[in-house]
Amino acid sequence: MSRKKAYPALLPPMMVSDAVRVALAEDLGLAGDLTTQATIAPDATAVAVMNAREDGIIAGMDLARAAFAEIGPGLVFEPFVTDGAHVKAGAKIAEISGNARLILSAERVALNFLMRLCGIATHTGRFVEAIGDSHAHVCDTRKTTPGLRAFEKYAVRCGGGHNHRYGLDDAILIKDNHIAVAGGVRQVIEATRAFAGHLVSVEIEVDNLDQLEEALDADADAVLLDNMDAATLKKAVAINKGRAKLEASGGVDLDTIGAIAKTGVDYISTSKITMAAPPLDIGLDIDIRA
Amino acid sequence: MSRKKAYPALLPPMMVSDAVRVALAEDLGLAGDLTTQATIAPDATAVAVMNAREDGIIAGMDLARAAFAEIGPGLVFEPFVTDGAHVKAGAKIAEISGNARLILSAERVALNFLMRLCGIATHTGRFVEAIGDSHAHVCDTRKTTPGLRAFEKYAVRCGGGHNHRYGLDDAILIKDNHIAVAGGVRQVIEATRAFAGHLVSVEIEVDNLDQLEEALDADADAVLLDNMDAATLKKAVAINKGRAKLEASGGVDLDTIGAIAKTGVDYISTSKITMAAPPLDIGLDIDIRA
Amino acid sequence: MSRKKAYPALLPPMMVSDAVRVALAEDLGLAGDLTTQATIAPDATAVAVMNAREDGIIAGMDLARAAFAEIGPGLVFEPFVTDGAHVKAGAKIAEISGNARLILSAERVALNFLMRLCGIATHTGRFVEAIGDSHAHVCDTRKTTPGLRAFEKYAVRCGGGHNHRYGLDDAILIKDNHIAVAGGVRQVIEATRAFAGHLVSVEIEVDNLDQLEEALDADADAVLLDNMDAATLKKAVAINKGRAKLEASGGVDLDTIGAIAKTGVDYISTSKITMAAPPLDIGLDIDIRA
Amino acid sequence: MSRKKAYPALLPPMMVSDAVRVALAEDLGLAGDLTTQATIAPDATAVAVMNAREDGIIAGMDLARAAFAEIGPGLVFEPFVTDGAHVKAGAKIAEISGNARLILSAERVALNFLMRLCGIATHTGRFVEAIGDSHAHVCDTRKTTPGLRAFEKYAVRCGGGHNHRYGLDDAILIKDNHIAVAGGVRQVIEATRAFAGHLVSVEIEVDNLDQLEEALDADADAVLLDNMDAATLKKAVAINKGRAKLEASGGVDLDTIGAIAKTGVDYISTSKITMAAPPLDIGLDIDIRA
Amino acid sequence: MSRKKAYPALLPPMMVSDAVRVALAEDLGLAGDLTTQATIAPDATAVAVMNAREDGIIAGMDLARAAFAEIGPGLVFEPFVTDGAHVKAGAKIAEISGNARLILSAERVALNFLMRLCGIATHTGRFVEAIGDSHAHVCDTRKTTPGLRAFEKYAVRCGGGHNHRYGLDDAILIKDNHIAVAGGVRQVIEATRAFAGHLVSVEIEVDNLDQLEEALDADADAVLLDNMDAATLKKAVAINKGRAKLEASGGVDLDTIGAIAKTGVDYISTSKITMAAPPLDIGLDIDIRA
Amino acid sequence: MSRKKAYPALLPPMMVSDAVRVALAEDLGLAGDLTTQATIAPDATAVAVMNAREDGIIAGMDLARAAFAEIGPGLVFEPFVTDGAHVKAGAKIAEISGNARLILSAERVALNFLMRLCGIATHTGRFVEAIGDSHAHVCDTRKTTPGLRAFEKYAVRCGGGHNHRYGLDDAILIKDNHIAVAGGVRQVIEATRAFAGHLVSVEIEVDNLDQLEEALDADADAVLLDNMDAATLKKAVAINKGRAKLEASGGVDLDTIGAIAKTGVDYISTSKITMAAPPLDIGLDIDIRA
Repeated sequence: MSRKKAYPALLPPMMVSDAVRVALAEDLGLAGDLTTQATIAPDATAVAVMNAREDGIIAGMDLARAAFAEIGPGLVFEPFVTDGAHVKAGAKIAEISGNARLILSAERVALNFLMRLCGIATHTGRFVEAIGDSHAHVCDTRKTTPGLRAFEKYAVRCGGGHNHRYGLDDAILIKDNHIAVAGGVRQVIEATRAFAGHLVSVEIEVDNLDQLEEALDADADAVLLDNMDAATLKKAVAINKGRAKLEASGGVDLDTIGAIAKTGVDYISTSKITMAAPPLDIGLDIDIRA
Repeated sequence: MSRKKAYPALLPPMMVSDAVRVALAEDLGLAGDLTTQATIAPDATAVAVMNAREDGIIAGMDLARAAFAEIGPGLVFEPFVTDGAHVKAGAKIAEISGNARLILSAERVALNFLMRLCGIATHTGRFVEAIGDSHAHVCDTRKTTPGLRAFEKYAVRCGGGHNHRYGLDDAILIKDNHIAVAGGVRQVIEATRAFAGHLVSVEIEVDNLDQLEEALDADADAVLLDNMDAATLKKAVAINKGRAKLEASGGVDLDTIGAIAKTGVDYISTSKITMAAPPLDIGLDIDIRA
Repeated sequence: MSRKKAYPALLPPMMVSDAVRVALAEDLGLAGDLTTQATIAPDATAVAVMNAREDGIIAGMDLARAAFAEIGPGLVFEPFVTDGAHVKAGAKIAEISGNARLILSAERVALNFLMRLCGIATHTGRFVEAIGDSHAHVCDTRKTTPGLRAFEKYAVRCGGGHNHRYGLDDAILIKDNHIAVAGGVRQVIEATRAFAGHLVSVEIEVDNLDQLEEALDADADAVLLDNMDAATLKKAVAINKGRAKLEASGGVDLDTIGAIAKTGVDYISTSKITMAAPPLDIGLDIDIRA
Repeated sequence: MSRKKAYPALLPPMMVSDAVRVALAEDLGLAGDLTTQATIAPDATAVAVMNAREDGIIAGMDLARAAFAEIGPGLVFEPFVTDGAHVKAGAKIAEISGNARLILSAERVALNFLMRLCGIATHTGRFVEAIGDSHAHVCDTRKTTPGLRAFEKYAVRCGGGHNHRYGLDDAILIKDNHIAVAGGVRQVIEATRAFAGHLVSVEIEVDNLDQLEEALDADADAVLLDNMDAATLKKAVAINKGRAKLEASGGVDLDTIGAIAKTGVDYISTSKITMAAPPLDIGLDIDIRA
Repeated sequence: MSRKKAYPALLPPMMVSDAVRVALAEDLGLAGDLTTQATIAPDATAVAVMNAREDGIIAGMDLARAAFAEIGPGLVFEPFVTDGAHVKAGAKIAEISGNARLILSAERVALNFLMRLCGIATHTGRFVEAIGDSHAHVCDTRKTTPGLRAFEKYAVRCGGGHNHRYGLDDAILIKDNHIAVAGGVRQVIEATRAFAGHLVSVEIEVDNLDQLEEALDADADAVLLDNMDAATLKKAVAINKGRAKLEASGGVDLDTIGAIAKTGVDYISTSKITMAAPPLDIGLDIDIRA
Repeated sequence: MSRKKAYPALLPPMMVSDAVRVALAEDLGLAGDLTTQATIAPDATAVAVMNAREDGIIAGMDLARAAFAEIGPGLVFEPFVTDGAHVKAGAKIAEISGNARLILSAERVALNFLMRLCGIATHTGRFVEAIGDSHAHVCDTRKTTPGLRAFEKYAVRCGGGHNHRYGLDDAILIKDNHIAVAGGVRQVIEATRAFAGHLVSVEIEVDNLDQLEEALDADADAVLLDNMDAATLKKAVAINKGRAKLEASGGVDLDTIGAIAKTGVDYISTSKITMAAPPLDIGLDIDIRA
């Protein structure tokens, strides 16, 4: 489990430009940017600088770049950092030059993406740091912003976290509600094996150690240990003997994650890193000397 | 300025169904919900209950309803609260009945929208409460999640807040960057009057009281007082003599907003109510007695 | 109220390319342009010239340019005029060179946009000229072609007109139907103040001078004087004493607008400039000497 | 050539609902209809009546109906006329009842479609009437509003006109520009025969009678006689001896079309019926007795 | 490995209706179905019967149903079989009743989907039957029709086959090209473990038994044995000792699959079941007695 | 009827890029290409060669080129053949160079389009060859893959075939079902003449020679002779005396088409060339020497 060796991920460029165009359309409406049209000459040019206003981890530079590319032709975007970089307050992130109207019209969209994704990367980084040199991985969930899941999961990765499944379609995660409708642990795991393709992994959520044993007997690939205290998690690790991947979930925060990690579980998942990540403060200023 | 008398807003139904379909497609991918397909019989039915797990203000019931309507035909969604309602932890929000696969496949999308929007409404409500019976209004900004602005601004309103402009197209807000490119306060305000339609309001951001006087002389409809302390805000109110609407912005949080409100400004805008709102915890559980 | 000093507006480039792609797809269908495929060699090149065939005002050059850019790569579009320019019959508007098939396949889309928008700009110009040096502004309405409102309102501006609101979302205009459902003038204006954000302007339509006084007392930002004759409009101006912006509407045509303007109203709105504007005749011809 | 016996056309329902949703989204923006939200209670109901305010021919009832259906659920639309009907000023076209906010929010979109399409049908009807009992057909062109071609061609048909090709893809029409690039009349017709599928018709535009003879020799299915006077058109009819369909185009207006029709040509095409059709005045009023 | 016990899969209804609308739009164009408009009265009704014209396995009933639902309101679709059913030539598949124009306009889209998907299910069934009671599974690939992958993979499942990964995003399959760029077997597997989430399975393609051993040592979840003969496959099974899932690929057809299955491999993947499946002949006939 | 002289067709570039983006999105999902992200350094470059692995006719080079262009910026695509070319097994089709991740992520989409379209062109070529120097044309039908009709009909043309109508909207083809609902042969043809535009051709399907005579009397442009044997087809040709275009359909395969062609019919249509065309095997390999 060697976090450091993984290659950086790649957001598909098409996906980036499509998302940015939706956001620009949302902000421009039918009339476009009234303020820049009213106040700035069509051919005025400017140089703008984007700065971090607090310490953090960068994620989403491609989206920022795309905001200035998609608003119209001709803007030059020069990045000073790459995704995954740790920056200090005041660090220069990028410089944008060209038509002044277009720069200012794209500013908010670029920053809205960047502040949110850097916020997630930075917050994920706090959780990763809190588990120290434990072998556990910090993991996201499907509790993401509708429409932005791919970007938020990418940001988690930029912050040093790992990605849980991306959707309902790429792995099986059997929860209490499925068991409530479908029957016991063994039955549902067997049903998934009959149904799923050979590269589909099967994880099951369990509430207690009896269910864990039943899941292990049924050969689950991974088991989500829901809302267990550290002592119970430790027992779960002992019972497991390395058979399934063990994921702790529930009650995870910056105060508790260190202790959870020490129990020996493999993954610790939390929606905090996506849903509760404060935005990273980033500003864009016209360089008046330019 | 009578917050209580305003009618409730209406999210255009088309916009709701479109957003929900995007979110469902994001979660379902090509293969659909593997877990429910694998574990639950096609004709199994269930009753599910949606509960608040903490106190808060409701926003987004139409999106939750739409998630269960758009996933497929035949589910019945019965709401127990309406947007704007204050609920206590444990309160039943809605009951959904019908095909078990479809209920569970739509669950996450319904909750992701609802948790976020209720979170915004609830957090807005905290700011509104903090200003007490001051005449000031709590106001959002354009710092919203790309693609979800209409919903987030609607949630602000459910929480008792007011909406600033929705985009670059429905009002003019002249910021420091515009002035940096375009010239002085008076010039830019005059330029906007020459450009804008007769129902377009003009607001300008000022950093000090000299700029405020210049803006008032140029007959701005509203002035954003950027990052001023309470003493300076009080002076601004005195200088203004009711001519323009005054909006305080910068350094607004739950600790400071009370004092800011007492200065007599009309609006206090903050991105905290959208970007830093913690999600409201809401759960969906199969009613096993049903 | 200085029409001449306003900067030229900017159609968001994204919006232009999207609209042109829809129009090209409409014209090309599945099989594409059968005639050029059948009659012209794939690598044939041509130079085409676009000429005005009657006097008029130009609007929509970006759409024409985009038609030749989006049909396929490699065409060169050289404009000879800019939006807002007054041209004479015979004036050369643009020259397009490159692949002959692509030029001819994009021709109709480019001309359909241009003829319509130049027609609107030209017709607007006629109304603007008819009011002479009155301080009144000629204004559009929401009676525009479905799907083309942004472009048609832009054309109105190119012709020297002003834009009324762009949609239901950027200003409040209370009409007789709203009053019929909701109650009296004062009540509806108060309701809008309780509801609307602080940069949203409120206009109300009135049928008589009593309603005007009620609207002014309730502090409307603007009042639409519906179908009043010149004498009544003059009285309205006198009553108003500069408090609200006054807009005359109804019965506006090239014969009447001069007299209406002289009453002292601020705005004169008419759907004639969009819905009844004859297209400007523009042609594209292959330069056979090229 | 029996105009009366043709069945009425059908606008594909999918196409209607898609176009109406685009138009509603254009009008509603992000914030929706501010005026109805501000002034009308969410559960207020109303009955509205749509009336013709001048004589005309109806076209586009499905679009009007769809505007009220797509804005949200529950409105009842009762039509009093069908497409193709001749109505008198004051005639009741439809009655809409249900939620008052939704009725008023959809009003403008319904009317913008209906006024335009009824305008085209009505104006087409004037041309059709002007040719009297001649066997000629009045025909549209591809000079239509970008994005609305299917609807405008449908309206032409409602007014008693005939449809020329719908796009570049459903028939071949060789114009002077094609000949300029590709060679002579005979060569281009032969090239089209080699290229086109067996159900694709071939029409060619000619400027003089020599070209007509060449086109007939090359076995064109139809010949467009461009800008010829009545005497020349008569000679063309004599030369043709019924071999190809003959279409007159250029210089067609309400004053000239009668004479053109008497020359014996089969089709008379003009962009006037689409591009220069004045809108039919139609209004919607809340029935205050309801 | 109990094929029979798996629940039937569910095509997300949204995905079905979206795909059908695209196909209907493709077939209807701007003018709609000219033939039905020209020949059938608007209010004529009919009953149509859909029959299999050869033996096969059914897949895609939801798409057929949707074609008749999306073309317009009011058609009644009564199915006589369900997906996965084996039908004989002449079997009645469904009956559709209602507006005659709409039934005939949707016919081709319904049949084009159904003939293709039933063809895939039927052809898959032939491969499944050819492996007899071997424990091996017949598996699809990513060689599917662009835009229709979800439906084609669903049809494979209806025919008794299993699904390989749905896209580049739901599992890792390292092929020779990846190894050529990235380095040796062990390195690439280790790189994937560092990168991938904990529910992502890793398969690697190997050309020979040395590579197989290297892959097993590196703990691959599955190994694709590329183009090996039966003797080599048998050795691979022996070497594997049940550690990884083994997939045979290359040179698979109805003549060879039986022997391949007997080698003891777990999965046999082939693009033949999607790309080379002949369509199942299905017809729709108006019931003239109705 | 000179197949050789027709110019090559042009797939509208917009249509190509749109289709490729849909296909890339389908394959990439939210997470993108996990394998290349996991195994290949972000800045690794490669040269890849695309080769035919069997003899065939090329169609779809623009789609292959677009797959590498749309996946992201910077890849260089060098084609070695053009559409319509006959290639031998082993022939180099194209070389792609640039970022290694992007090349491998786009590979499958490029090949899925190309293998299918080359397969159709190649299979069409077999039917064209089988009719030898008969004057008959091989023709496609509307039995195409939903969403890909334009591309498949283009491929038919690359293989030397002719295109029947593209959809329900560009010609009238009256089938037995229409006659069953609408009445006899003569009535339906007359109804189509009353309805259809002057460039719309009318074809009717007949089952016997009596119907053929009726159709010819009613002046059909073309007659589809459904499922007639060669002797009957010959009689049909004799009866026709060149009046209408004659199309044979039903029971057409590589064994029968030669005899059918010799009967003297003008067109022979078959869904075999689209629905039953085996894919052409094409591979992409990293050039490890590069």
